[in-house]
Amino acid sequence: MTDNITRPQPITVLGLGAMGAALVRSWLSAGHPVTVWNRTPARADPLADAGATVASTAAEAVAASPLVIACLLDDASVDETLTTTDLAGRDLVNITTSTPAEARARATWAEKRGARYLDGGIMAVPPMIGVEGSGAYVFYSGDRHLFEERREALTVPAGATFVGEDAGFAALHDVALLSAMNGMFAGVAHAFALVRREDIRPSEFAPLLSGWLVAMSQSAGKVAEQLESDDYTKGVVSNLAMQVAGSATLLRTAEEQGVSAELIAPYLALMERRLAEGHPDEDTTGVVELLIRR
Amino acid sequence: MTDNITRPQPITVLGLGAMGAALVRSWLSAGHPVTVWNRTPARADPLADAGATVASTAAEAVAASPLVIACLLDDASVDETLTTTDLAGRDLVNITTSTPAEARARATWAEKRGARYLDGGIMAVPPMIGVEGSGAYVFYSGDRHLFEERREALTVPAGATFVGEDAGFAALHDVALLSAMNGMFAGVAHAFALVRREDIRPSEFAPLLSGWLVAMSQSAGKVAEQLESDDYTKGVVSNLAMQVAGSATLLRTAEEQGVSAELIAPYLALMERRLAEGHPDEDTTGVVELLIRR
Ligand SMILES: NC(=O)c1ccc[n+]([C@@H]2O[C@H](COP(=O)([O-])OP(=O)(O)OC[C@H]3O[C@@H](n4cnc5c(N)ncnc54)[C@H](OP(=O)(O)O)[C@@H]3O)[C@@H](O)[C@H]2O)c1
Ligand SMILES: NC(=O)c1ccc[n+]([C@@H]2O[C@H](COP(=O)([O-])OP(=O)(O)OC[C@H]3O[C@@H](n4cnc5c(N)ncnc54)[C@H](OP(=O)(O)O)[C@@H]3O)[C@@H](O)[C@H]2O)c1
Repeated sequence: MTDNITRPQPITVLGLGAMGAALVRSWLSAGHPVTVWNRTPARADPLADAGATVASTAAEAVAASPLVIACLLDDASVDETLTTTDLAGRDLVNITTSTPAEARARATWAEKRGARYLDGGIMAVPPMIGVEGSGAYVFYSGDRHLFEERREALTVPAGATFVGEDAGFAALHDVALLSAMNGMFAGVAHAFALVRREDIRPSEFAPLLSGWLVAMSQSAGKVAEQLESDDYTKGVVSNLAMQVAGSATLLRTAEEQGVSAELIAPYLALMERRLAEGHPDEDTTGVVELLIRR
Repeated sequence: MTDNITRPQPITVLGLGAMGAALVRSWLSAGHPVTVWNRTPARADPLADAGATVASTAAEAVAASPLVIACLLDDASVDETLTTTDLAGRDLVNITTSTPAEARARATWAEKRGARYLDGGIMAVPPMIGVEGSGAYVFYSGDRHLFEERREALTVPAGATFVGEDAGFAALHDVALLSAMNGMFAGVAHAFALVRREDIRPSEFAPLLSGWLVAMSQSAGKVAEQLESDDYTKGVVSNLAMQVAGSATLLRTAEEQGVSAELIAPYLALMERRLAEGHPDEDTTGVVELLIRR
């Protein structure tokens, strides 16, 4: 007989909202002993039925497992919840949404209290958690050893992508991707508005739209290349002069269709500004510079 | 012996800019006799070398082939070029970028002159033309018979997607997709700006970004479903109340990173307005309504 069997690690989860509850269920399904705590105790009941141990205080929950997951509303609620707990010797994985600066401060705060700290940013909605092939994943940053040692448990609910030892990087990646997504959604809303009053079926239009966006999403790679080489003319196909000339058709069409251009105009205006500053042969990558405050 | 051999049709191309020249080369490669004309005659020289017949006037070019392609700068240049020509009995395919209203007016104008009319919007850049598997295609709208009868020739340079008998629909689809793309590019620029001063390699960040955008582009299908059912709460996962709460983190992070929020703020503001109008349980689809002027 050998002792070489990895037993599922015990895990504590603080916060049983939509996301916290989904995480708990995925760990329970994978055979991990899970201790849970929630400010409003009733939310723990269905998870107790599913096999979780319910702690009556956050301090008790933290004491129950070496690996502690915080999935609360925001950084303020993390503060409020953890202030009464003894974090010494714990591995604290905080996947509460926060800004990079909040995550960095929380890392320092946790380390001062004797905990190792990993920050997480969840790229998923609760129904995707624990679902094989859903594409869900979590950005992690902070203590690399913690991540490596706990990787097996951390990858149960969703994929795990480590993006650096700077504890703020998970939040930064998270927010950057969500911001880009909002830009895309803004464009999608504008596109649907343009065709809304026409005899065009949204469900026939949608696949054309998403197909085009998928094809064009690859341009992020070119932006990266141009930023790294500091040469925004590298591999350009439609230069800024052409793009700005084309903008006029987009704006006139919005006008014709009775659609406000407020969602597309700011980007077109920045392209125009970059062009006016004397960069006709560049790609649109120079817009990135205009966004960064001196 | 049978006469049942389809000979490649003769084609006339007006306008030998980057796009027009690429089209001509693809038709020549496929064995079509091509007659060309360009306002500045010298641009025809390399195409003559490649086998095209050069007409010395637009009128002569139009007389040379039953199928006439116009690929000029804008609608005004189409007007200027065609005014001196006899279009009676011609099939005019105008793939010059225009607005939907310009395309509709051009269709009426051409039909009055005895031509059948098809309008096109090119979803490609010149290097993609004639390249198998490049993903390039052209939206066509207008005369369905013209499209069907000329389909074989029309699909030589790129795929051909017919989007309706309303001559303005090709332009409308074209502009809608380009507008959505600009929204996505705006989001991408914002995302790169957020990470620009950090120790994050753009080329490592880019695939994460485009992977996320590809996954999220599928939401266009859900927007379509919600618009068609007039029920914006249908299948919602993150409702407007949650999205608006999340916006704060995006804006604070931009602030922290010293990045202007001008590209993402307008969409967040519209979500907030829709929420304030009393739709917490909806998806973000209601934003489409706010864009449409009464
Ligand atoms: N849901 C998503 O789609 C999603 C996606 C990605 C990331 N996230 C992130 O995941 C985290 C949790 O989200 P969720 O969807 O589970 O949120 P939720 O359903 O609103 O749950 C919020 C949780 O935070 C607790 N909480 C709030 N204020 C507290 C305080 N002052 N002290 C102690 N506990 C407090 C709540 O406890 P009570 O039950 O007592 O109110 C509840 O457990 C958030 O940071 C969110 O941004 C969510
Ligand atoms: N290039 C692209 O990436 C792309 C992509 C999609 C769609 N398109 C569309 O395709 C069309 C052609 O684009 P392109 O890239 O070939 O443009 P381009 O290289 O700038 O060429 C413009 C063409 O229009 C001609 N022209 C301009 N004004 C004229 C006038 N008043 N009378 C007669 N001819 C005139 C020019 O003739 P001269 O040589 O005499 O100046 C030239 O042949 C445009 O509508 C464009 O929006 C282009």
